[in-house]
Amino acid sequence: MTIRRLQPEGRLAGAVVHGQTVYLAGQVADDPTQDAGAQTADVLRQIDALLAEAGTDKSRLLSCQIFLCDMGDFAAMNRAWDAWFDRANPPARATVQAQLADPSWRVEITGIAALP
Amino acid sequence: MTIRRLQPEGRLAGAVVHGQTVYLAGQVADDPTQDAGAQTADVLRQIDALLAEAGTDKSRLLSCQIFLCDMGDFAAMNRAWDAWFDRANPPARATVQAQLADPSWRVEITGIAALP
Amino acid sequence: MTIRRLQPEGRLAGAVVHGQTVYLAGQVADDPTQDAGAQTADVLRQIDALLAEAGTDKSRLLSCQIFLCDMGDFAAMNRAWDAWFDRANPPARATVQAQLADPSWRVEITGIAALP
Repeated sequence: MTIRRLQPEGRLAGAVVHGQTVYLAGQVADDPTQDAGAQTADVLRQIDALLAEAGTDKSRLLSCQIFLCDMGDFAAMNRAWDAWFDRANPPARATVQAQLADPSWRVEITGIAALP
Repeated sequence: MTIRRLQPEGRLAGAVVHGQTVYLAGQVADDPTQDAGAQTADVLRQIDALLAEAGTDKSRLLSCQIFLCDMGDFAAMNRAWDAWFDRANPPARATVQAQLADPSWRVEITGIAALP
Repeated sequence: MTIRRLQPEGRLAGAVVHGQTVYLAGQVADDPTQDAGAQTADVLRQIDALLAEAGTDKSRLLSCQIFLCDMGDFAAMNRAWDAWFDRANPPARATVQAQLADPSWRVEITGIAALP
């Protein structure tokens, strides 16, 4: 099976496609001064862009792992998630609290998706 | 490859099957008043049920990620794990400490399995 | 698809190969008295060995998840990473802070790779 690496940026790729499966790097907000809800919306837009570049979309998201630096942001993250995810095609998901590489990042999301 | 979504519950699915691979959502105990060992046993029963619905079982578990809200529960989690896992077919596993969405949850387990 | 389990050690396997995909268990340093950079280099050597036993190498690494017990070790971890990873083939990567099973472990790395 072929391997394609999307948006390589130094020590990691934004996504890697192996056969029919797409592995996303942990995505964080471009503007870390925003609150958790706005950062989540930003992260989800970046996931949309990576999935589009891979040749797929959020309706084929298989699983997601969400890291919040403060679980107190769970509701705000979920509001942005609920405005975004495909209700006909929800992924398997896990959310845990973890400090991220930059303390101004509130949320980091990684995931696995399928090609059509 | 086809995608099947099992036990959808609002914003996530309990498991998603893509081709021959099953992605589990993070499973938590139904009764969070139990101790870490009992919660782990409960989580593993839920994983059994999801794998059965997908058409497979724990002998085809490929990898597991275990989140404990307190690493002091590592031994109690492992006792429940040791009573459950298929000794002929152990998965790749990683265990780390992380606060979970509900502070009464002691353990959350996610994983990837294969169909027969 | 066939399943092969490499380096089984009690309750987990060091890696599990399913079809063309290799799932790594969380790797930690053999010598936990070392600093974060040396522990990372040790972990990456163990990943090399597991990938070799599976029949592949780091040029086919698809994704990596890095857990640091102290995000203050991020730069030291990255120096070891930069000396190791295949610049032509970077994986998707996510790094978060999490306490590990043994408090002397500074870093644990898990990942998914492809067979040739």
